[in-house]
Amino acid sequence: MRISSSAEKTFLEKVFAVDGFSKHDGALLADTLVDADLRGISSHGIQRLAWYTRMIKEHIIEPQNKVKVLKETPTSLLLDANKNMGQIASAFAMNSLIKKTKQLGVSLAVIRNSNHFGTAGYYARLAAKQGLIGIALTNTRPLVVPTNATEAFLGSNAFAFTFPADPHPFVFDGATSIVSSGKIQVLAKNNKPIPGDWAVDDHRHVVSDAQKVEDNLAKVAFTEEEPGGGVLTLGGLLEQNSNYKGFGNSLVVELLTGILAQGSISADTNKPGHHDFSQFFLTINPGLFGNLADLEKRAEKMFDRIRHLKRVPGTTIMIPGDREYRHYDENLKQGVVIDDKTAKELETIGKDSHVEVPNPL
Amino acid sequence: MRISSSAEKTFLEKVFAVDGFSKHDGALLADTLVDADLRGISSHGIQRLAWYTRMIKEHIIEPQNKVKVLKETPTSLLLDANKNMGQIASAFAMNSLIKKTKQLGVSLAVIRNSNHFGTAGYYARLAAKQGLIGIALTNTRPLVVPTNATEAFLGSNAFAFTFPADPHPFVFDGATSIVSSGKIQVLAKNNKPIPGDWAVDDHRHVVSDAQKVEDNLAKVAFTEEEPGGGVLTLGGLLEQNSNYKGFGNSLVVELLTGILAQGSISADTNKPGHHDFSQFFLTINPGLFGNLADLEKRAEKMFDRIRHLKRVPGTTIMIPGDREYRHYDENLKQGVVIDDKTAKELETIGKDSHVEVPNPL
Repeated sequence: MRISSSAEKTFLEKVFAVDGFSKHDGALLADTLVDADLRGISSHGIQRLAWYTRMIKEHIIEPQNKVKVLKETPTSLLLDANKNMGQIASAFAMNSLIKKTKQLGVSLAVIRNSNHFGTAGYYARLAAKQGLIGIALTNTRPLVVPTNATEAFLGSNAFAFTFPADPHPFVFDGATSIVSSGKIQVLAKNNKPIPGDWAVDDHRHVVSDAQKVEDNLAKVAFTEEEPGGGVLTLGGLLEQNSNYKGFGNSLVVELLTGILAQGSISADTNKPGHHDFSQFFLTINPGLFGNLADLEKRAEKMFDRIRHLKRVPGTTIMIPGDREYRHYDENLKQGVVIDDKTAKELETIGKDSHVEVPNPL
Repeated sequence: MRISSSAEKTFLEKVFAVDGFSKHDGALLADTLVDADLRGISSHGIQRLAWYTRMIKEHIIEPQNKVKVLKETPTSLLLDANKNMGQIASAFAMNSLIKKTKQLGVSLAVIRNSNHFGTAGYYARLAAKQGLIGIALTNTRPLVVPTNATEAFLGSNAFAFTFPADPHPFVFDGATSIVSSGKIQVLAKNNKPIPGDWAVDDHRHVVSDAQKVEDNLAKVAFTEEEPGGGVLTLGGLLEQNSNYKGFGNSLVVELLTGILAQGSISADTNKPGHHDFSQFFLTINPGLFGNLADLEKRAEKMFDRIRHLKRVPGTTIMIPGDREYRHYDENLKQGVVIDDKTAKELETIGKDSHVEVPNPL
């Protein structure tokens, strides 16, 4: 079914108020989920609400806790998210960095004691809106098997990068692993097989049964059982196809999040009392190096040349961001897609919170 | 054959003096090439000398030109390499950033009008030696075909990232594409087939004949012919294995180098008068967020856990940098490897420059 994004937002704000979030924080959380649904990134949209609700009940998320500034300099910020949702500290961080970068040209923030923060792109896009380059990183639950390994250790570790351009900024946003676990969840929900070499078992053999992989990942990521197997690094199954480069990219994110924040590394976030995530943000003022309008034009011209390269018949070449901005415009008119399982979860949440669920369009 | 790294260095310094480089610049250039050979990255070692010599003759490299500072702020530096070797402006930039970052915690530099700069890791390691996080990027000649495309547009676009640790820093250093063209050159020299899905023809069909690919890449990268085909992005041949993520990583480097520097993008560096490369450097003081020794210990502990994960029998799990530091120690004792073709090139260069070529060990 589809529901209007404005009805989705109202519903979420009411539920978050019942959960104990402040009006400001609830509006922010709702905005990040609706934004993901509008962009067609449903894995990070309202379908996460049941999980968030569970984490609040388990006191992994503490909705009334305030962000703490642990250390601040003219170019940096170290925050403690204080076990509240990652969105809250992350938006705080990014808004602060935008001010700092307008002063000194570059700044960065690290957050510890955080939780899931939605899409990394949300924060990087805040920078792009201000004519800045934005970078956002997070570690996650353990999901990803390093090159040659047969057990998961790394997070799927999101990386978002934005660069100002028209008609929309360049937005590269996704897991550093070959896919996010959300993509496998969506296939499992729809009883579809995995179309590529995405996940392996404890012998490092590729598994294409999405439900089987999803069941295994749930154990790997959320329990202390060690069933082996997990998601592959970018580059896939084989070292000869350079999967150690995907491994390296994942490690870069581990170092800049869990290590730099002195929080848990992804590998430990399935252990009791260690469910904390860490995040990293960096913004750069391209004006340090040139005129913004000129730089945007150069970027746009390059993107347009790429879109029109010779290609395999029947395919298109898309620049990162093209797909999500197209979805955004479409879904704003047609409403956002809610899958059947999520629709049922929303019914339950609505009943428990005494909040009316949006009607299908 | 093998030659001692100190003899290699002396030989290179003498040749570079004959080429017209200053003593300081020649010593730096020699150090970057010897360093690459010691680390087993022979694609970026002395085997590049013949190419450098050719570029000097063609006035693509101007050995006596001085680096120009175009714009400087407390956190940033915009340089014009003035058509001299990339190493010279890059080392200048990194040494300046180290000072800036010790003051303000973070700083970045962009270089235009540059040339090949050796390995990206060389500069990122300068930061690591000072207890800083280092990032180095460069664009290159056009070599890489975007997702679904049948012609090259992107550079192989190197990305290096270092994080301080013992017994050696984390050093992730390589092309953002599935492999660098150098890796294909080495296979072609040794009459070996390509072992993975690395390169495609103008129909986007995988080609495993290394010499055939190498001949095609030479046309793609160095001429205005447009034969089609090229190196794949990380992720390989198929969109379903997320090769658009490798494409995205390559584009991030294009934006931070050619676009931000307002120089040529990789796609244009095969056109007469546009052979300029651009580089990007960023350094971060991890001390903004925690105690350096503690952060190093956390990183080392994580690396050690990864090295000992359950794995496919007969394989090892290596952390980025492990291999090159092992090679470094070995080659310092045994001498660096010079392949037959390079040995012949050195004979010619030695004769032309009246410099004695090192004897084999």
